[in-house]
Amino acid sequence: MSVFTEFSLMEDLHKPGGKVVLLVMDGLGGLPMEPDGLTELETANTPNLDRMAAQGTTGLSVPIRMGIEPGSGPAHLSLFSYDPVRYEIGRGVLEALGIGFELLPTDLAARGNFASAAADGTITDRRAGRISTDECIRLCAKLQDATGDILPGYEVFVKPVKEHRFVLVIRGQGLGGELSETDPLVTGKKPLAVEDSSGTAEGAATAELVNKWVGAARAALADEERANSLNLRGLARDPGLPRFPDVYGVRAAAIAVYPMYKGVASLVGMDVIKFDGERPNHEIDALERVWDDYDFFFVHIKKTDSYGEDGNFDAKVHEIEAVDAVIPRLLALEPGAVLVTGDHSTPAKLRSHSWHPVPTILWSPTAMPDQVQIYGERACASGHMGIFHATNMMPMAMAHAGRLTRFGA
Amino acid sequence: MSVFTEFSLMEDLHKPGGKVVLLVMDGLGGLPMEPDGLTELETANTPNLDRMAAQGTTGLSVPIRMGIEPGSGPAHLSLFSYDPVRYEIGRGVLEALGIGFELLPTDLAARGNFASAAADGTITDRRAGRISTDECIRLCAKLQDATGDILPGYEVFVKPVKEHRFVLVIRGQGLGGELSETDPLVTGKKPLAVEDSSGTAEGAATAELVNKWVGAARAALADEERANSLNLRGLARDPGLPRFPDVYGVRAAAIAVYPMYKGVASLVGMDVIKFDGERPNHEIDALERVWDDYDFFFVHIKKTDSYGEDGNFDAKVHEIEAVDAVIPRLLALEPGAVLVTGDHSTPAKLRSHSWHPVPTILWSPTAMPDQVQIYGERACASGHMGIFHATNMMPMAMAHAGRLTRFGA
Repeated sequence: MSVFTEFSLMEDLHKPGGKVVLLVMDGLGGLPMEPDGLTELETANTPNLDRMAAQGTTGLSVPIRMGIEPGSGPAHLSLFSYDPVRYEIGRGVLEALGIGFELLPTDLAARGNFASAAADGTITDRRAGRISTDECIRLCAKLQDATGDILPGYEVFVKPVKEHRFVLVIRGQGLGGELSETDPLVTGKKPLAVEDSSGTAEGAATAELVNKWVGAARAALADEERANSLNLRGLARDPGLPRFPDVYGVRAAAIAVYPMYKGVASLVGMDVIKFDGERPNHEIDALERVWDDYDFFFVHIKKTDSYGEDGNFDAKVHEIEAVDAVIPRLLALEPGAVLVTGDHSTPAKLRSHSWHPVPTILWSPTAMPDQVQIYGERACASGHMGIFHATNMMPMAMAHAGRLTRFGA
Repeated sequence: MSVFTEFSLMEDLHKPGGKVVLLVMDGLGGLPMEPDGLTELETANTPNLDRMAAQGTTGLSVPIRMGIEPGSGPAHLSLFSYDPVRYEIGRGVLEALGIGFELLPTDLAARGNFASAAADGTITDRRAGRISTDECIRLCAKLQDATGDILPGYEVFVKPVKEHRFVLVIRGQGLGGELSETDPLVTGKKPLAVEDSSGTAEGAATAELVNKWVGAARAALADEERANSLNLRGLARDPGLPRFPDVYGVRAAAIAVYPMYKGVASLVGMDVIKFDGERPNHEIDALERVWDDYDFFFVHIKKTDSYGEDGNFDAKVHEIEAVDAVIPRLLALEPGAVLVTGDHSTPAKLRSHSWHPVPTILWSPTAMPDQVQIYGERACASGHMGIFHATNMMPMAMAHAGRLTRFGA
């Protein structure tokens, strides 16, 4: 059963119409803590979301493939309708875009983690005790000074992200390859050298360049008490994805708190909206403010995932309820179609992302009101959209908002 | 929804985890004999399977494509997650592997059927009156003597399988092509010559070689009373599939009674476990014995299909109940994930394999307990896995057993 809607169809068929909102509660899907219990979403008191489920069409979304636990980047690509198995992007690119760094197509980006190491280089803490963001800013400035011009013919940018995380960007010609990461992923091991598996001259030269930078950077950190080492992950260039505004014919806005999600939205060509505050109501404030300027709105709620990863069932329930509370303000804007979903499941029971399909509502005046009356994992399993690949959400919402013309005569 | 999980993903993501059991009741799916009746599975008293359905996630599996009636080989390839439309294997290869013949990659294998023919060669009984296996053994020895060295530069092996069935293997260099079968598929017609449709010199030479052997073999059988002719089907070489243990990172064991199923398991690289007895409890004995030595277990129950083919509704019901009775022993081994399914449907009403999707349980401590409380065709239609291609079962079970890492960051 392949019913994936190809980009070329969207590019051919889009037309002006109602506004579309993609409301993503990160890691929304859950599991009962006990076999006969309820999930986080089933437990939450969500009168407004339940009404949307009753009025709209529901289903279960598969983010990547059945059985595959999604990372955040691929999961969001899928929501934006880019099949992440086909379109791979590096974590470094996502992080760089997330902090608003203007990447050139030829730039190589890597995600950096400050780390603690023993005298022989063995990693003792992969996050350097989760140093503060202020400390991260100081360390990045130090590295920029010490390593900014050690690669002849190349510019180097070292930019802070948050806590122990930073971004490295190397700018110049001829960067590429398939580059491995330095992070051994467990403590008690030494970092790895970056290696190229593409077998190209470009890849080999780039690996050498990066390893040279890593050596100089670690030397510059040697006198630090905690962050005396670092690792690089997700080294890659911008994959040059088709632009979302072009594919769908929409002016697209992203409203998100965390850099990662701003990054992936920016990667596909959405405008990232600046706003104050971090709570769902602040995000709706921003939505109201820019409502007239855009056709499509990606609104991202992070904490549902964070609490799931912490194993905090109750806090995840409360965050879902906080989102439910702002739903009337969203609907008062009179959108043509609203998707309510998650990028993946993060059951508090598993304290991790998981492969379980994600309960999804497609609300629209043109939606088939199916028999599903509440918003929950098991209720949505009998919804009118069935179990579908996440890449189908955008075409469905576009249609319901009256933004697609007929295919054929 | 294209949610087929590519091999490359599995090869990249697998890690150690819990043990996985794939319990296949051959031809499990059925139909009511009367419009308002129950199916074989719905009729069977299966308290243990019902409990697994209640605790686990359920759905309906499509073995090949919607509407396609599966053969046993392709259906099992699909269960092992090899899309049988993409990966074709010849029946001769399956039969040869099933009797434990060690095929070389260059060997050509065919399934042979002893047949009865009139004086002019017209086939009067395609199975030679279903001769006994002892008779088959005698005839194969006779053919081995008469035809073993009639193809200069090639070795010929004629091996008995069961009743009227045997295997022909031709060994040597340069064998290949796309070869047709000799069986006219109905009585009252003459056998066909083997033809090559690949258009290659190799194919044409191989067809000529096989036709020479067939002529000599029929001549050697001319004095037989019943089995005075033969036909060849499924002439092909081992397609060289990716090895299941490599794709999934598991030590894989196959527990099956019939040669065909041992053959297909062996073809993908599973170890075929030897054991005494033919009943479900003997298969569980074998499972318990090798439990510590493997990570994945394919357990095959044949009789559900045989009784379906016989149109024996009640015997199929009882066989399902015999499997239900051994379920507690299976779960006592504490597997990480158990798949309970069939390779296809064989409704007693149709006395044949059929295209109807197959009720499936995925039982695991990490499964979403969906609303399905009993194991049956119609109950599973509202399960949390929906209707899915059979090739998704292994990735799903791998995930639930904790054997897959995250895709992307």
